Amino acid sequence: MTSYDAFLSPLGRNLHESVLRKMGQVIASRTGDLISFAAGYPDPTGFPWDEFRTIASELLSGKDGSVLQYGPTRGYRPLLESILGVLGERGIKADLSQVMTTSGSQQGLDLIARVLIAPGDVVLVEIPTYTGAIAAFRNAQCRLVGVKQDADGINLEELDAVCLRERASGSRVNLLYLVPNFQNPAGILLSLEKRARLLEWADRRDVLIVEDDPYGALYFEDVATAAETRPLKADDRNGRVIYLSTFSKTLAPGFRVAWVAAPPQIVERFDTAKQSMDLMCGILDQRVVHESIVRGVLARQAAPLRKLYQLRRDVMEQTLRAQFGDRMTWIQPKGGFFLWAKLPDGHECEALLAKAMEQGVIFVIGNAFCVDGSGHDRIRLSFSWPTPDQIREGARRLAAAMEIPVGKV
Amino acid sequence: MTSYDAFLSPLGRNLHESVLRKMGQVIASRTGDLISFAAGYPDPTGFPWDEFRTIASELLSGKDGSVLQYGPTRGYRPLLESILGVLGERGIKADLSQVMTTSGSQQGLDLIARVLIAPGDVVLVEIPTYTGAIAAFRNAQCRLVGVKQDADGINLEELDAVCLRERASGSRVNLLYLVPNFQNPAGILLSLEKRARLLEWADRRDVLIVEDDPYGALYFEDVATAAETRPLKADDRNGRVIYLSTFSKTLAPGFRVAWVAAPPQIVERFDTAKQSMDLMCGILDQRVVHESIVRGVLARQAAPLRKLYQLRRDVMEQTLRAQFGDRMTWIQPKGGFFLWAKLPDGHECEALLAKAMEQGVIFVIGNAFCVDGSGHDRIRLSFSWPTPDQIREGARRLAAAMEIPVGKV
Repeated sequence: MTSYDAFLSPLGRNLHESVLRKMGQVIASRTGDLISFAAGYPDPTGFPWDEFRTIASELLSGKDGSVLQYGPTRGYRPLLESILGVLGERGIKADLSQVMTTSGSQQGLDLIARVLIAPGDVVLVEIPTYTGAIAAFRNAQCRLVGVKQDADGINLEELDAVCLRERASGSRVNLLYLVPNFQNPAGILLSLEKRARLLEWADRRDVLIVEDDPYGALYFEDVATAAETRPLKADDRNGRVIYLSTFSKTLAPGFRVAWVAAPPQIVERFDTAKQSMDLMCGILDQRVVHESIVRGVLARQAAPLRKLYQLRRDVMEQTLRAQFGDRMTWIQPKGGFFLWAKLPDGHECEALLAKAMEQGVIFVIGNAFCVDGSGHDRIRLSFSWPTPDQIREGARRLAAAMEIPVGKV
Repeated sequence: MTSYDAFLSPLGRNLHESVLRKMGQVIASRTGDLISFAAGYPDPTGFPWDEFRTIASELLSGKDGSVLQYGPTRGYRPLLESILGVLGERGIKADLSQVMTTSGSQQGLDLIARVLIAPGDVVLVEIPTYTGAIAAFRNAQCRLVGVKQDADGINLEELDAVCLRERASGSRVNLLYLVPNFQNPAGILLSLEKRARLLEWADRRDVLIVEDDPYGALYFEDVATAAETRPLKADDRNGRVIYLSTFSKTLAPGFRVAWVAAPPQIVERFDTAKQSMDLMCGILDQRVVHESIVRGVLARQAAPLRKLYQLRRDVMEQTLRAQFGDRMTWIQPKGGFFLWAKLPDGHECEALLAKAMEQGVIFVIGNAFCVDGSGHDRIRLSFSWPTPDQIREGARRLAAAMEIPVGKV
């Protein structure tokens, strides 16, 4: 057989491809020296290897068969209880009916797509927004409509106007997707005042908010505080917020353990959906994560990681300033992994990427994050994975790709 | 908010619930003494704990950061190469373009559902068939149409008649789902002659075959041979077979690592779909499985597991015969985990389950496996997890639930 087109479902024919994943394939396939500002990978030197090794050895003693057995779809119950503790530290009161594990937050997005998005729905997102959400939601055959960002997060006036406009034209508008803490890709921190107003808005307009919070613990102490990262979910009196978080940035992404906190009726639907998707998250992974919480490993990780990534951000900002002066602009990231740069006049991100790859540096093109077709004058630079030396060399290569005189840094 | 119904998608409202998973919740919630013939769990005493512990300790040394990093969606490349070796031992020649990892075979079924099943399609299955496939496929809003089984597997005459009848009435019929080796739930081994005829049939009728093969390595040496488990995929000259297999039964289910072997065009679609579903399988899990293959752990597992489960089957058959005489009948399982019993006259499986739970024994009701509404005179008894003593005691309780005089065994 030469073609399988006739066998594909409509979804199979129209799957949304992930730009980030394709970029990962480029990195994997390229030989030689390449500096990546593309992948939002945590730095593996920051993983608590010794603790993981000790925990895994103990768990794999063979004394407890359930460590490698099938288990409940919702998650290993002691882990769910540990997660309630983590939520509590973030100001979120929840019980076991409101929480479940997911195979990465990507699965949380996919569950939302399948359970809550009907074909033809409008889902509201920021411009720019996270590509993984774009992919998952588009695969539910919805229409993504963008709302612009200010320096302190989503623009509330435009949000309301867009919602009303779409409803007036007959669309079902049930969901708003946000990354309030150190947004991917823009690095922006949503202000506390806007968080409160968003909850009121969701009540007024009868909308659910998907709050995706992978980076909340990674605020930079020179410009942000833990209090400023308080999740919307913590003040969600009326069950309006579906909260997603993960251990991928604070423990390690190789464990596919993330979680959802949401109203019980929604968690019950997610649980049923996950049963036919992958039965459960890896049990050894869940057990290692649980032990990492119980033994204080997770708590001890946060402060050094904040320092590590703050240093990387500092190096990247200083280097970009040295290389580009005021020709390249961005809003300072107050946490997380990403810097969202506006390119010097006359540069377009896709053409630049081709030249940058020749120079041995890559990033993610801005338009990949923008559902309105904008973003061609933007690039996402990740500072989490490259070392300070690589950041400096990468910025030199980026300048060379733009044919801007390379400065000394 | 009291109700979220208005927020659900059509799928969210009509999710198919898994009977097996619900049964798992019953087990987990029940306190006290309960013998389970329900769950198809492998025996954790058979897991290679020492080898896993050694492998995990080495991997978690911290020398190789990629052990816990994000990785390619398709899978850790050395593992994919190891899987090609496993496939080769089963007679299947494939290359890297034809294989990918999945988060359990359940995700393989979900990928098939999403990429290859359009709403309204007819998917052909056996009566009975695996509940996890029923759930995944029904969530793609298809119609499942059943074909009866003979002692040597699916009835080919009825298969062709059903396919032609459904097409004549205007339905799209693209897929046949089969578990050829020691079927779940019927324990049946599809004959080699029928395998060959099925491949011809798929070509003639332009149908793809989904071959789900979790139990192939677990044939019982008193009545079956490795040669008799040869996958259809091994003789698939025309790219008609999507082959699913897993390490859950031979290494451990707690690692969510399974795989698909299929034509490259289909694997490429699955890869793209998985990107927005969970990005990738757990990397530590993949690495442990890879090392288990490379170090010969997987190969060494097979023979002792065959003996272990054959012994359990023997105990279950002897015990059922002693308790029920010829009032309960079944086809002898030649491998795998399950015995598919026809109940004594006058007994119905759901009513019996209620009484059996009072006696402290559970099983899976037959109608859960039958898409045509039949199966009420059947139960699935799993012999893989209970010990021989538990099997004997469970059978006594089952007899008591039926108010049949309890024999001594």
